[in-house]
Amino acid sequence: MDKRFSYVDHLYCPKCSKKYDAMKVNNLCTCGSPLLAMYDVEGLKENADKQEISRRDGNMWRYSEFLPVADPQNIVTLGEGYTPLLEMDSLGEKLHLNNLMIKNEGLNPTGTFKARGAAAGVSKAKELGISNIAIPTNGNAGAAWATYSAKAGLGAYVVMPNNAPMITRSECTAAGAHLYLVDGRINDAGVIVGKLCEKYGLFEVSTLKEPYRLEGKKTMGYEIMEQLDWKPPDVILYPTGGGLGLIGIHKAMKELKEVGWIDDANTRLVSVQAEGCAPIVDAWKNKRRESDLWEDSYTVAFGMNVPKSLGDFLVLDALYETGGYALSVSDEEILEAQAMVGHNEGLFVSPEGASTIAGIRKLVDNGWIDKNERVVALNTGAGIKYPKSVTVDAPMLKPEEEITL
Amino acid sequence: MDKRFSYVDHLYCPKCSKKYDAMKVNNLCTCGSPLLAMYDVEGLKENADKQEISRRDGNMWRYSEFLPVADPQNIVTLGEGYTPLLEMDSLGEKLHLNNLMIKNEGLNPTGTFKARGAAAGVSKAKELGISNIAIPTNGNAGAAWATYSAKAGLGAYVVMPNNAPMITRSECTAAGAHLYLVDGRINDAGVIVGKLCEKYGLFEVSTLKEPYRLEGKKTMGYEIMEQLDWKPPDVILYPTGGGLGLIGIHKAMKELKEVGWIDDANTRLVSVQAEGCAPIVDAWKNKRRESDLWEDSYTVAFGMNVPKSLGDFLVLDALYETGGYALSVSDEEILEAQAMVGHNEGLFVSPEGASTIAGIRKLVDNGWIDKNERVVALNTGAGIKYPKSVTVDAPMLKPEEEITL
Repeated sequence: MDKRFSYVDHLYCPKCSKKYDAMKVNNLCTCGSPLLAMYDVEGLKENADKQEISRRDGNMWRYSEFLPVADPQNIVTLGEGYTPLLEMDSLGEKLHLNNLMIKNEGLNPTGTFKARGAAAGVSKAKELGISNIAIPTNGNAGAAWATYSAKAGLGAYVVMPNNAPMITRSECTAAGAHLYLVDGRINDAGVIVGKLCEKYGLFEVSTLKEPYRLEGKKTMGYEIMEQLDWKPPDVILYPTGGGLGLIGIHKAMKELKEVGWIDDANTRLVSVQAEGCAPIVDAWKNKRRESDLWEDSYTVAFGMNVPKSLGDFLVLDALYETGGYALSVSDEEILEAQAMVGHNEGLFVSPEGASTIAGIRKLVDNGWIDKNERVVALNTGAGIKYPKSVTVDAPMLKPEEEITL
Repeated sequence: MDKRFSYVDHLYCPKCSKKYDAMKVNNLCTCGSPLLAMYDVEGLKENADKQEISRRDGNMWRYSEFLPVADPQNIVTLGEGYTPLLEMDSLGEKLHLNNLMIKNEGLNPTGTFKARGAAAGVSKAKELGISNIAIPTNGNAGAAWATYSAKAGLGAYVVMPNNAPMITRSECTAAGAHLYLVDGRINDAGVIVGKLCEKYGLFEVSTLKEPYRLEGKKTMGYEIMEQLDWKPPDVILYPTGGGLGLIGIHKAMKELKEVGWIDDANTRLVSVQAEGCAPIVDAWKNKRRESDLWEDSYTVAFGMNVPKSLGDFLVLDALYETGGYALSVSDEEILEAQAMVGHNEGLFVSPEGASTIAGIRKLVDNGWIDKNERVVALNTGAGIKYPKSVTVDAPMLKPEEEITL
């Protein structure tokens, strides 16, 4: 039999085990749970080849066999993925770690990891004949979906909190999306989008309300493993809002074990949240399977301001199954960590990305991370999208004026 | 003999033909001209292999044989280069072109092509034992040099016009650079930096005042050729301020012809400038070899606000030698083109990048570009660094409010 572009097989409900057709339009399971894309593992074992993949173009579609788009003609791409995994020797030294790496997702189109989810989601929406999507967002996901929707010729309706990063408004506008602001939080935006979709038959692409955004995000996990020559690291830290990136990395690890490309890895996954919005940390400390809605949430790391995620149980599963950890850091610690990364490594990370470095400090201090462990921190976005996270103090000169040091 | 990491041979003055040692610190030639890095062509022909290069990591250091850093230990990298060359089918249709591509330099660290020059320049500075650099900049180059200097552990002094893009101040600060603003233009910043370097012995890295920034930039040309399977396109358009990118692409084409990796290409190079600052266009129209200082320059595409470039004669050489073109576009045309790219392709380009699309419109209209030609436009930076280039108009909703379409 000919090799296939994708080995996607069906959609599966992790709560009630019901199956759905991956070539039909689906949102949630009838039981209310998100659906997960499942693959033909035997087909993958037989036909997918990691040597061949290593010679493909440097973007996330190199893993097409493990992605849900059946026909390559439907791929909507701006070159997302295969971002660099950077060695952080100076920063590692400061943090007493001998093997620290940052996966820099800021080098994606739209400047964040959200491009992966949008590229996969929009490509599959195109494949399924969908013509309009709607999304509630803390800014960056909306900007990404607006961008890829424009590339695909789909209409995009984006609703974001008034205090989401300003630049994401410009991005939505640049891409010609229909943009709305809400004087509230992402959960409020979610309610508005839900009603909008019901009223006008738009396709709702809220986190986990469609199954394919996750598939794009899981490619972060595939890349980390490939970039480390399929030798899984000891620890991966993820800044957690909706938590989809972490769920995706966990799914990637499970899929790669199933096809035998990585050994029974002992990678521990860590969820870092902000002190002002830490529902997952709270649930994890109490060994619960789901989180409670976090009241009056706030944080400078705006992408992490998610009071209650639909995928909370999957995030917690990932932490429990891998022997991971959940911890929160203060906004002050986040901004300190951001400066520390910039001064030592040049890299201007987002506050969300910086939170993982703040988290590492604590986990080295309390001994949970050993100095010789291989540690990967995710910088989910480019610092250039967050101009206000840095306080600039520069003298103003006149032409012909001289500088005295 | 063992293969070498780099086949850099010496520095050469294109005005008086004097040679300099590439392993010693050099700025300009004694005659005042910029110096160019020259390579051992026979060594390259014998030892560099394009098949081997195609299997290397997706960043600009894959061309190490053609770059000036002798020892791989001195490479200072954040994963710059090997940006995507994107097919622009919808946009091409609007512009009556069947084969339009955009090389998206916005996916570099620091969000612009300036990262290439800074990576090469800082790496070589490290190799030569330099400890402090100083740079006048329209913003993005300064941000890039600040970033790579931090990664390398060098001190960086940056002077930029007060109205340079605000985000570049944040970037310099995030990287711990010494930042100064000047109430003037980049040429004023240049005078200040010149005096600063003279007074304190800092290494001056103004455009072409050190020879290696150009070497980083030329990798754009290497990549375009490799990404097109070493079949040169018909036209490459470049937004021109200092013009180093264009000079670099021209140098790449010449070097690749010398080693025989591309045929005697007929690629015509096009310089696009802003109507408010078009010294190259003016010189080209008058068939002159150098440009005059442009008085009272202005443009929304701030990176192109360079009233007089030290490398003007090399830009003009590139245009004359390739049978190219120089033209200017208005700020209004630039912003129109930016929206056109966004709405049709999702891509949020910088005003500088958009200027090339505005240029294409004119060159298709006047028949200089044929509809079947293979055309590559350079988007030199990410639109997310230019929030004010887009006017946002979004309704504000209350939680629970409904949207009516």
